[in-house]
Amino acid sequence: MTLLVVGSIALDSVETPFGRTEEALGGSAVFFSVAGSLLHPVEVVGVVGRDFPMGELQRLAQRGIDLRGVTVADGESFRWAGKYGFDLSTRETRETRLGVFANFHPEIPDAFRDSEYVFLGNIDPELQLDVLRQVHRPKLVACDTMNYWIQGKRTALLRLLEQVDVLLVNDSEVRELSGDWHIHRAARWVLDRGPSSVVVKKGEHGAVLVDRERIFYVPAFPLDDVFDPTGAGDSFAGGFMAHLARTDDLSPANLRRAMVYGSAMGSFAVERFSVARFEEITRADVETRVRAHRDLVQFDIAPDV
Amino acid sequence: MTLLVVGSIALDSVETPFGRTEEALGGSAVFFSVAGSLLHPVEVVGVVGRDFPMGELQRLAQRGIDLRGVTVADGESFRWAGKYGFDLSTRETRETRLGVFANFHPEIPDAFRDSEYVFLGNIDPELQLDVLRQVHRPKLVACDTMNYWIQGKRTALLRLLEQVDVLLVNDSEVRELSGDWHIHRAARWVLDRGPSSVVVKKGEHGAVLVDRERIFYVPAFPLDDVFDPTGAGDSFAGGFMAHLARTDDLSPANLRRAMVYGSAMGSFAVERFSVARFEEITRADVETRVRAHRDLVQFDIAPDV
Repeated sequence: MTLLVVGSIALDSVETPFGRTEEALGGSAVFFSVAGSLLHPVEVVGVVGRDFPMGELQRLAQRGIDLRGVTVADGESFRWAGKYGFDLSTRETRETRLGVFANFHPEIPDAFRDSEYVFLGNIDPELQLDVLRQVHRPKLVACDTMNYWIQGKRTALLRLLEQVDVLLVNDSEVRELSGDWHIHRAARWVLDRGPSSVVVKKGEHGAVLVDRERIFYVPAFPLDDVFDPTGAGDSFAGGFMAHLARTDDLSPANLRRAMVYGSAMGSFAVERFSVARFEEITRADVETRVRAHRDLVQFDIAPDV
Repeated sequence: MTLLVVGSIALDSVETPFGRTEEALGGSAVFFSVAGSLLHPVEVVGVVGRDFPMGELQRLAQRGIDLRGVTVADGESFRWAGKYGFDLSTRETRETRLGVFANFHPEIPDAFRDSEYVFLGNIDPELQLDVLRQVHRPKLVACDTMNYWIQGKRTALLRLLEQVDVLLVNDSEVRELSGDWHIHRAARWVLDRGPSSVVVKKGEHGAVLVDRERIFYVPAFPLDDVFDPTGAGDSFAGGFMAHLARTDDLSPANLRRAMVYGSAMGSFAVERFSVARFEEITRADVETRVRAHRDLVQFDIAPDV
């Protein structure tokens, strides 16, 4: 099944206690597609400025990432700069220069309009809705959002939720969206507004899948050294969606597997700056980490109970 | 196998956003033994003042809790009063009146000295060491501690760790003890000082068992309403130790099960004030929650990988 992502393509300058990087590949569509393409081909819709390092993009194309939906616009590429605190749990945005991303109006190429699996990265919900008007009956639509849209475009966001199957958000976002600090109640608030599943990402505390019947919990993979948290959430989404598109199976058991692939990809993302870790690994490394996730939580119930 | 706990017996006055209680049963030995006795008999060593409501203690005796090690001393019982913030993640201590607990010197009755499983609740590490001098070759010793002893009795605490098999502590405590903010590295720091296992309790984020080979993660059971977090950690310890004493099996697989029993007990503790929830439930309710824990994390790996 084909998998489409619409989102940002950025140049990130990140400083962590362990080093810094200047103008490295970033943005939701980049992390999503680089992670996802380890499992399944990904079609990308996004925009870059004329100053974007095209060689970097072409490297992506060699990984099974279809860039026919990436347009080059007059102006500067989207740049983000941030600095993380000593324990990586706080971050300060130093600069956001939207550049051509400020006028991004996603146009889905004809070749991509039949995509069965669609991920709407964190952009204006009006634009996310516009993408859904352009695609033909996808089997599964998932989306991300952020506090900026929750506060500023609430009506559009609620309209979007009516048309979305899976909402993937951070814990703070689902709390703000629902007005309920309790994660599971907040997730059920979202379920009442359209989606059949909510994935709440909790950073170092893992992620939780909530649907109308059950809750599934996947811990963050225990890493000795987290290098740079940037992109973990979009890499999670890439693993989650690529597993679903590859298997074309929306059963509850397979959604659980998708969560584990998502968590595995999130854990790889943070081991290096930018998407560097994904360029070192293969599908076999992903499967090894998925098995390690199982060992992390597996127990059997005593025979006498 | 017999199971012994040494710890505090208190009267707690707790205020949460959902209500308040005055002078209800509390303290580490109480939560530990009331939770644990759902699985296995528990012997208690502690002290109360002459003002302690003895009827409450006698109710405990009917549950398979052996109170022959509880002494009644001249003076007031230990009282603690606290108030939790709106999301229950912060708490303010309003009053701590140690009373007879200030001069607590645990004396292990002869009948308890052969206990195979020993839990040293959070008391002065010098006293914890003294308990170990009184018992005869237990099969497993576990202990708790707190920031007060980490800061003020570090040398005694490190001597204690050399004689302990399992340290059960909060995330903030293991960070402070080791000087490493990273939970898994901090746990390994502890492993280098004696214990063969470390259990790090992370409140709403679950608990993790770290030994020299592996990491096991159990999420907190998802509850719609957490009523009062007081005693969750000691109830966890009660479930963990009572499962081990009942099964007398220290295999890695059974330690994992013990973690799940611990988590189940922690989740019951927070559903009512004091130990009230444990008086409503039976062993069957515990087993049901253990199975629900399995459903919360269980996934199978896809057949094609």
